[in-house]
Amino acid sequence: MNPDPDYSAAYVVLRTEDGAEGHGFTFTIGRGNEVVRAALDALAPFVTGHTVDDLGEFARRLTHDSQIRWLGPEKGVMHLAAGAMINAAWDLHARRAGKPLWQLLSEMSPESLVELVDWRYLSDALTPAEAVDILASAQAGRTQRAKTLEEHGYPAYTTSAGWLGYSDEKIDRLARQAVADGFRLIKLKVGADRADDVRRLALARAAVGPDVRIAVDANQRWDVPEAIAWMGELAAYHPWWIEEPTSPDDILGHATIRRALAGSGIRVATGEHVANRVVFKQLLQADAIDVVQLDACRVAGVNENIAILLLAAKFGKPVCPHAGGVGLCEAVQHLSYFDYIAVSGRLDDRVIEYVDHLHEHFTDPVVVERGAYRLPSAPGFSTRIKPESLVRYSYPEGAAWN
Amino acid sequence: MNPDPDYSAAYVVLRTEDGAEGHGFTFTIGRGNEVVRAALDALAPFVTGHTVDDLGEFARRLTHDSQIRWLGPEKGVMHLAAGAMINAAWDLHARRAGKPLWQLLSEMSPESLVELVDWRYLSDALTPAEAVDILASAQAGRTQRAKTLEEHGYPAYTTSAGWLGYSDEKIDRLARQAVADGFRLIKLKVGADRADDVRRLALARAAVGPDVRIAVDANQRWDVPEAIAWMGELAAYHPWWIEEPTSPDDILGHATIRRALAGSGIRVATGEHVANRVVFKQLLQADAIDVVQLDACRVAGVNENIAILLLAAKFGKPVCPHAGGVGLCEAVQHLSYFDYIAVSGRLDDRVIEYVDHLHEHFTDPVVVERGAYRLPSAPGFSTRIKPESLVRYSYPEGAAWN
Repeated sequence: MNPDPDYSAAYVVLRTEDGAEGHGFTFTIGRGNEVVRAALDALAPFVTGHTVDDLGEFARRLTHDSQIRWLGPEKGVMHLAAGAMINAAWDLHARRAGKPLWQLLSEMSPESLVELVDWRYLSDALTPAEAVDILASAQAGRTQRAKTLEEHGYPAYTTSAGWLGYSDEKIDRLARQAVADGFRLIKLKVGADRADDVRRLALARAAVGPDVRIAVDANQRWDVPEAIAWMGELAAYHPWWIEEPTSPDDILGHATIRRALAGSGIRVATGEHVANRVVFKQLLQADAIDVVQLDACRVAGVNENIAILLLAAKFGKPVCPHAGGVGLCEAVQHLSYFDYIAVSGRLDDRVIEYVDHLHEHFTDPVVVERGAYRLPSAPGFSTRIKPESLVRYSYPEGAAWN
Repeated sequence: MNPDPDYSAAYVVLRTEDGAEGHGFTFTIGRGNEVVRAALDALAPFVTGHTVDDLGEFARRLTHDSQIRWLGPEKGVMHLAAGAMINAAWDLHARRAGKPLWQLLSEMSPESLVELVDWRYLSDALTPAEAVDILASAQAGRTQRAKTLEEHGYPAYTTSAGWLGYSDEKIDRLARQAVADGFRLIKLKVGADRADDVRRLALARAAVGPDVRIAVDANQRWDVPEAIAWMGELAAYHPWWIEEPTSPDDILGHATIRRALAGSGIRVATGEHVANRVVFKQLLQADAIDVVQLDACRVAGVNENIAILLLAAKFGKPVCPHAGGVGLCEAVQHLSYFDYIAVSGRLDDRVIEYVDHLHEHFTDPVVVERGAYRLPSAPGFSTRIKPESLVRYSYPEGAAWN
């Protein structure tokens, strides 16, 4: 559980000789943000003075160094830092191209997209040739799907009603408000107290009616048997998915939970703490999850997320990104648009998390209307924090810290 | 692969008000050592000014903080740092008790040992009650087994003959030397070039004869299908195990490789990069490995390694620790002695890696004679680097850096 988040980010600005800039970051919840900063310093020699033109090579340069791999490999602090660096490079590229990232990606050829992926450790589940086939199959209809998104937006869901510690009255009010605002899925935090969860979920179900989906999120609270027993008690209120029922490393545990809950119609979701594409690969191979919750900043940036989108498409599972925190909504939206337009081609059961928090600090904040994300047209990855916010909140010299 | 290791360590000294000291470290291969240092600084507030008397609570304090968990959880840089901190506390405790760590642990009650473990995420494979039973079963014969180790030592194996880049002549000479020195298992690095590996393994087999075991180590080089094909070509020379055939995160991949190689008698080993007890749990649940290669410094110290030893005992798999690097031989030996005396009670197919490198910097270096580790009697965890080495090699001020 995350009882005391102190929203923070390690922030990267890449500058090229011709004056172009790319901004990226990785979100933390406070302590240890400075460790990610140290990790960025350790990666800087792989970036400073080098070219950023080939983004496949750029991403592999940041994740293949043998000495850096010793600290992971491809997980934890070093991988968060690599993600921030790689996402900054994508912001730079999209700005240079004068396109929002979702559009830049959606217009690339299947072959060019496949070259962006680090294929190590994937071939028992997905080969580059299969990936080309998936992307080639999605080429027809790309223009039409982009138009659909521009007209209707991309479905969002909200966690606003469901934080632990909210009074019953507040949950009721916010759940009704969410439906009135157009959301068709809301999410409640669970796992602190079983009787409380039953009461809160009953209340939320009564507030939203039978047709609005309610997801629940345990934030890794449970062991496998406890997850199964606890969700058994909540099943009567038809939760749509249980998110992070146990350790994000526990592939087999998720599979056991999913098998046990299959009869109740409760889906299993995870991803915000899944370390890398190798773990996602196995979650899919083991049929351990129903919902792939990729995160823009946990893995090695856009490149590794392309691998994860391709794996999800291969296994036919919907991607519903993790968002919230600092700027995750801004970043992940591009990946979902790209997924619909050029990878899976599907919107069914796909939805992007939305938390109305900290958007005011971004130069290109997300726009969510009537329960849907609106497609951004500004060039870049929407990952830039306003200059005045950077000055005010920079640690330790910013005025906000006085 | 680790082509260019630059042996380094982030080093911790804990000091108590009464003047006691505990030393711990985590080994890196160069770049990023300073990131682990930053991680230690981030953990310092959980240690400085607090008690270190309850080592179960101490370990959980370092791994349960929600903000720190965001950076893992329990993996990568933060977990390496937690391991260094926790191992330093164990060195302190053993020194205070006037006993080597192996003895301190081996004399504890089953209940006290079980309280040291973080049981989160384990109960679908092993419960505290089962762990007490395992330890209680091993209580009879502890004195006799300690005596056996004192008389005969604990079997070691050597990687000295098998580094990539060695000439055929050198491999032949060192392999024969290893046998003459009393080793019954040697290890060769593989995975760079298939024809080279066939030639080198044939040569080593001819040098050591049919009865000395030869393990091979791919250091994560392969995808799953490649591992199976490559090892198929080496099978004629009867390798004892294939170590790290693929990503250390790939539980299902290891299981696939193991099933494919079962007919050839080649065992599958991994562990030096396995992030935590949750991944070890699954490697055992999935029957993915034959050999559990725990590492003293990769996971959260002695406490998490007790969990891993208990899991291995439950599933009946031998523990053969990873060693080498900086001081790993010194540290892991204690865990293997404890395993034999008080956990598994078994020596069959158990062996500790030995690399003759950097021992001269330790105040209590390992002693390996006639292919066996000799039991240390000095108090502590054998994790102290000599004061003069610390001064000379401290970065950046030490004389060695001029």
